[in-house]
Amino acid sequence: MKKYEIIAEDIASAIQQGLLKRGDKLPSIREIQRSKLVNASTVFQAYYLLEARGLIVARPRSGYYVAGPLHHERLLPHSGIDSGTPTTLQVSDLVFNLLERIKDPQHIPFGSAFPSPLLFPLKKLADHMASAVRRMQPHETVQDIGQGDIGLRRQIALRYQLDGKATDINDIVVTNGALEALNLSLAAVTQPGDSVIIESPSFYAALQAIERMGLRAIEVPSHPAQGIDLVALERAIQQHQPKACWVMTNFQNPTGSLMSSAQKQALVALITRYQLPLIEDDVYRELYFGQQRPLPAKTWDQEGWVMHCSSFSKTLAPGYRVGWVSAGRFTEKITRLKISTTLATSIPAQLALANYLAKGAYDKHLRQLRHQLMLQQLQFSQAIHQYLPAAVRFTLPQGGYFLWLQLPEALDSLPLFQQAIAQRISLAPGHLFSSQQQYASYIRLNYGHAMNEAHVRAIEQLGQWMQVSRI
Amino acid sequence: MKKYEIIAEDIASAIQQGLLKRGDKLPSIREIQRSKLVNASTVFQAYYLLEARGLIVARPRSGYYVAGPLHHERLLPHSGIDSGTPTTLQVSDLVFNLLERIKDPQHIPFGSAFPSPLLFPLKKLADHMASAVRRMQPHETVQDIGQGDIGLRRQIALRYQLDGKATDINDIVVTNGALEALNLSLAAVTQPGDSVIIESPSFYAALQAIERMGLRAIEVPSHPAQGIDLVALERAIQQHQPKACWVMTNFQNPTGSLMSSAQKQALVALITRYQLPLIEDDVYRELYFGQQRPLPAKTWDQEGWVMHCSSFSKTLAPGYRVGWVSAGRFTEKITRLKISTTLATSIPAQLALANYLAKGAYDKHLRQLRHQLMLQQLQFSQAIHQYLPAAVRFTLPQGGYFLWLQLPEALDSLPLFQQAIAQRISLAPGHLFSSQQQYASYIRLNYGHAMNEAHVRAIEQLGQWMQVSRI
Repeated sequence: MKKYEIIAEDIASAIQQGLLKRGDKLPSIREIQRSKLVNASTVFQAYYLLEARGLIVARPRSGYYVAGPLHHERLLPHSGIDSGTPTTLQVSDLVFNLLERIKDPQHIPFGSAFPSPLLFPLKKLADHMASAVRRMQPHETVQDIGQGDIGLRRQIALRYQLDGKATDINDIVVTNGALEALNLSLAAVTQPGDSVIIESPSFYAALQAIERMGLRAIEVPSHPAQGIDLVALERAIQQHQPKACWVMTNFQNPTGSLMSSAQKQALVALITRYQLPLIEDDVYRELYFGQQRPLPAKTWDQEGWVMHCSSFSKTLAPGYRVGWVSAGRFTEKITRLKISTTLATSIPAQLALANYLAKGAYDKHLRQLRHQLMLQQLQFSQAIHQYLPAAVRFTLPQGGYFLWLQLPEALDSLPLFQQAIAQRISLAPGHLFSSQQQYASYIRLNYGHAMNEAHVRAIEQLGQWMQVSRI
Repeated sequence: MKKYEIIAEDIASAIQQGLLKRGDKLPSIREIQRSKLVNASTVFQAYYLLEARGLIVARPRSGYYVAGPLHHERLLPHSGIDSGTPTTLQVSDLVFNLLERIKDPQHIPFGSAFPSPLLFPLKKLADHMASAVRRMQPHETVQDIGQGDIGLRRQIALRYQLDGKATDINDIVVTNGALEALNLSLAAVTQPGDSVIIESPSFYAALQAIERMGLRAIEVPSHPAQGIDLVALERAIQQHQPKACWVMTNFQNPTGSLMSSAQKQALVALITRYQLPLIEDDVYRELYFGQQRPLPAKTWDQEGWVMHCSSFSKTLAPGYRVGWVSAGRFTEKITRLKISTTLATSIPAQLALANYLAKGAYDKHLRQLRHQLMLQQLQFSQAIHQYLPAAVRFTLPQGGYFLWLQLPEALDSLPLFQQAIAQRISLAPGHLFSSQQQYASYIRLNYGHAMNEAHVRAIEQLGQWMQVSRI
């Protein structure tokens, strides 16, 4: 056990034993630092862990308190609603227009979909790539078309094995990032006109894919803490005979929800009973802040109905465009789609990653990355507590790099977006995450960039606009 | 003018002046070698040039002759036929099954779609990649999403400029190989149920894309020497209101046909008149054997109806998966499709190629590559003359690395394929190149691998099977 874990455990048991009660103020960071002879970041981490578990809460300009009404006041309610009937989507224009305006690197990047590229070991990767590509044999440029480099697939299979899930490397198809994996998976099991279940709210790429392929969306509520509502899911399956279900099980985009293992198991049992292909979008799993890496739903997939899609883009190698799908019974179909659409994934990028993963530095890097994101979440949420109106509600996800905020009711996030982008502050308005307009008063904020003074000022500015808009 | 060009010019003018007549035997390689004090490969090249221009012909075990009836006997007739009505395709299973069996690297690779990977400067590319990726800045991993690295697009635009065609770098979208460029182009202008014009015969990726997207194919005859029949094309446009036309203008796959500049200009005028989007598949252009690099049809595109698709996979960097489309009026649509399907092309691969192209070694490499392919075509066609039955007909393309052969009529290439693959000799049966079965007695052979004794024996073996099958 690490120092911060020991400190956290001490406080947690004090709370559980009733020695510390709701509303009690905790010692300041400095006090603990002195009494335990540790440095400040250790105490931060301990408090962070306790906060992530919901045991304590930070009160702006005051300190940490044992969790009580204050914390729950800010918790998001169960927000998703049933869409009722399958819907033909027309969101792409809005999405593309907003994305186009969000991408300026000079802006404060709260609307970005990516974490800071400074978080990744790009120099080390460059070394691995240099050595891999210099060793590359000519025949390697044309073999392994379709499924991908066998060495990389072996490394990916080994990571599933860490979870205790034996995975056949022949079930893995390497793709041009997770996005291609998701699109190929959806294409493998649908025809134009079919209905597909997605979460509400959901990642806009799912909405775009459905629109592009001429499919219809059934939006099923997803809770900001626990993920997709399985009761509503089963009802939707029975009513609409969907051909696929696209779910983010770990640190959902945008809500940050984390399904429990029990819920994942129940999800797989449900879709297996209905023989409904499940597209599991799982790109943030490695970015967990808790003690244990959360498992994918795929872990419980006995019959091969789950297509587990992930990538290295958010965890190790942005821009390399290397992802994969562990595709179960759909592997051959997906391989063929890959061959006839993009043929193969860039071989040098595959070899570089296989090389890096084989050398074993990935887990060390991931520990640092998770720690950094956890601290950034803490700093970001403190600024939000401090500067955004008290009526703003949100949940602290246990991983990833997004916060999903509900603004005071009268507030539409699109005018706020316009106002902010004019001042070079980007944010992702809730309109991006549903076809139903029910998230007009939500925003997604990215805390994947190290907080600096300009970021804090930007949050303060957002808070002022929110106040003014309410008048 | 180079030595071999001078020798060729001398002989060409002797033929034009009537000093050498049809059927006259030319001096042997050795005789010229001695009289002109040059080495054998120079003479080979000279004779090759003359052969490519149709002025002379090689006669097995005998030598070179001024072209006469012998040469024309072997010329392919105008083979394509109108498909009549738009057709829903079901070729993919056949294609995938055959491709799966062709890909074993232990086989004699006559059926392969790729040239030998030994033809490319992979070591030099590796050096460029190493230096590019070490200089890569973190922000480069997330900028230029969609259209691609601006440095690479500039290099691509410069190559268009070599042809005298000014190209806006904002019209270029970098893709995961030409295959993605072609697929995105087709997706940008069609909806399921639409009709699309393709050549007959045509590259099987076009057939697969049409089948996968739920489109209907209109097959328009393509002449093995001159390419698509413009009269038949206009008739098909008038009859079927197609939404796109997919044509290979330079060294068509499988026939090797090369459209003249006049034909290309007429093609663009035609599709512009009908406002019909033209998908120009042009991956073999740099592999020309003549004096001049053939132009793309895009050169004459004033109104932006042509989507010119190409890549570096066949000319420089197999396995890097870097291609592009110069997309005219469809650029924004294609960029959006790229963003929502594969997001971006692998950045290290883009930077490596931009780096390589900027240093100016590309043209030198291309000269060597063309020379090598030209010699391989010569050796390959000599072996065919020698070992295949005289009834086998074919045309020598002026570039690329495929020969398209018509077998004696009674011969179906599928049993021949089965027989050959059992002996580890691959070939591409004509069935792959049309939905209409009219190429059952054709095969495509790849001469992109240096000829060795095993290759010659394999051709001899093919010849024996063809003889036996006829009995």
